[in-house]
Amino acid sequence: MKANYTRPLDLKHGRVDMNHGAGGRATAQLVSELFARAFDNPWLAQGDDGAVLPAPEPGERLVMATDGHVVSPLFFPGGDIGSLAVHGTVNDLAVMGARPLYLSASFILEEGYPLADLKRIVDAMAEASRSVGVPVVTGDTKVVEQGKGDGVFIATTGVGALPPGRAPGGASARPGDVVLVSGSMGDHGMAILAVREALAFDSEIRSDSAPLACLVETLYAAVPADAIRVLRDPTRGGLATTLNEIARQSGAGMLIDEAAIPVHPQVEAACELLGLDPLYLANEGKLIVVCAPEHAEAALAAMRAHPRGRDAARIGTVIADDHHFVQLRTALGGMRMLDWLSGEPLPRIC
Amino acid sequence: MKANYTRPLDLKHGRVDMNHGAGGRATAQLVSELFARAFDNPWLAQGDDGAVLPAPEPGERLVMATDGHVVSPLFFPGGDIGSLAVHGTVNDLAVMGARPLYLSASFILEEGYPLADLKRIVDAMAEASRSVGVPVVTGDTKVVEQGKGDGVFIATTGVGALPPGRAPGGASARPGDVVLVSGSMGDHGMAILAVREALAFDSEIRSDSAPLACLVETLYAAVPADAIRVLRDPTRGGLATTLNEIARQSGAGMLIDEAAIPVHPQVEAACELLGLDPLYLANEGKLIVVCAPEHAEAALAAMRAHPRGRDAARIGTVIADDHHFVQLRTALGGMRMLDWLSGEPLPRIC
Repeated sequence: MKANYTRPLDLKHGRVDMNHGAGGRATAQLVSELFARAFDNPWLAQGDDGAVLPAPEPGERLVMATDGHVVSPLFFPGGDIGSLAVHGTVNDLAVMGARPLYLSASFILEEGYPLADLKRIVDAMAEASRSVGVPVVTGDTKVVEQGKGDGVFIATTGVGALPPGRAPGGASARPGDVVLVSGSMGDHGMAILAVREALAFDSEIRSDSAPLACLVETLYAAVPADAIRVLRDPTRGGLATTLNEIARQSGAGMLIDEAAIPVHPQVEAACELLGLDPLYLANEGKLIVVCAPEHAEAALAAMRAHPRGRDAARIGTVIADDHHFVQLRTALGGMRMLDWLSGEPLPRIC
Repeated sequence: MKANYTRPLDLKHGRVDMNHGAGGRATAQLVSELFARAFDNPWLAQGDDGAVLPAPEPGERLVMATDGHVVSPLFFPGGDIGSLAVHGTVNDLAVMGARPLYLSASFILEEGYPLADLKRIVDAMAEASRSVGVPVVTGDTKVVEQGKGDGVFIATTGVGALPPGRAPGGASARPGDVVLVSGSMGDHGMAILAVREALAFDSEIRSDSAPLACLVETLYAAVPADAIRVLRDPTRGGLATTLNEIARQSGAGMLIDEAAIPVHPQVEAACELLGLDPLYLANEGKLIVVCAPEHAEAALAAMRAHPRGRDAARIGTVIADDHHFVQLRTALGGMRMLDWLSGEPLPRIC
């Protein structure tokens, strides 16, 4: 059947076909009737091969971050690949200390994928983008044959502006610094796993997928910029892997208090059932802050006053350690090494 | 078999496994031993969630462009997905009139893909990036299960700086303007098709995959910035589709002289054999320029003096036409409409 591109796109019953990625009329129609309409902003409306954008303020540096999103399933409690793609990249910019400015989106679609589902994803992405105030200014669409993809992959890239004086980075943690987290660990990873394994719990476990840009700005408003040594969002590999990365980058060790780490009771129960550790599960809306000790209380108070940091907690300290080990003081009073994630990963979590 | 990440990555016989995308030690090893080594630059070496970069010069605007690359096969005469990913995005920035500054790369790998082939791709990408002087400053790697991808997909995003006074855009073509092309049409599309269909010709048809940034700068050095109305690289959909896009955006028509359009004899012969039109085949290293008539000769001379524009030609003019049709004066003296690409596309060409 030859498609008729003079009719509107059938967003109820239509499916992605190879023509949608061929660069002709069908591509133009998909872009104008779906993407441009959902993401509607003046830069995207330029309709050229890229977007011309205002540069950062004088004195600000550029920040650039990119993320490929291949989460499976595409829809899950608390979000979908569209909102996740926005939050993931906005958060990568935020934890660099940057104000997120612009996003690009590159879609790799599988032939036969329902346009109605694609529309749900694009609408969620547009809503997340509007809600955090970071427009999708340019994009690209490719289509691969059935069996050569998995529905929808989205690669997002973000550009932000780094105000003068801000320089958080994994290498800046030093002994005596305090380690804070903005809330409960493991929600996103367990939400995905629960859907994938069709686990049923009393109450649904929801992904924490959310933007962190506003929480980061709140933090910078509360304490001096140089007191914020490291910002990270503990995504793939979870808290344990992120703390090990910081330890390696800074050449220091860490002493973490297990009882102080917030974990939702349902996530904890699900982890016990499955023999998993919530500290290795991905988060998509949580912040790790390594802070100078004299400003730790102010940072914690500022986070707790923000809706995305209500359950923020002080979980440990950076210590001198030539082996840069991350040690966990367990709830029972013993000590164990918190190693990198290795073996048995949870694939396609984001 | 549990992989041992304390040994170096086996870049000869190893394969991509799900762990390489899980965000733990295996991901860190792939990044440090393959990507960071190949792309080696101070921004990527920051090792954080993104890169902090110098902003454009005062008065310059930002330009952002993105492209997903799903070309099949991954290797072809004249290039591979790695070099193509660099050229494609650099060219999107160049045709906006921008100086390309930075690239990001998001890899979606299929489980089981040979690391030796991935290394060839990454090395070609790094070489293309160095050769055009645009570093890959940040990246991301995801892995999908065998049968859920197709070896390697690469989404690249570019950021560039737009010097004051430059504003090429599809809407700026006006009646009387001259249409130039920088060289032969259809080489990339036919090179891919020849490999895919295992066509054998006397001489190999090579992709024209190449960066256009230097050719664009040469052009701006030769004529006033406002004389350059439109710049485009005719990729998917070829020259015919790109001219139609410009006609639609500018609300004008075009009169193109078929005999003036450069096409390599082998490409022409292959097109005749396959019943294809070279004007609909993708190009990955060619420029379309719509230029003010009084500067067209200078622009053409500047292009011809540049190695990437030796075969540049004047192929037609923009005309007033409320239907914004693109008309082709055929080699035999007749006239035909050059329509958008529709139906029968060549999928996965870039």
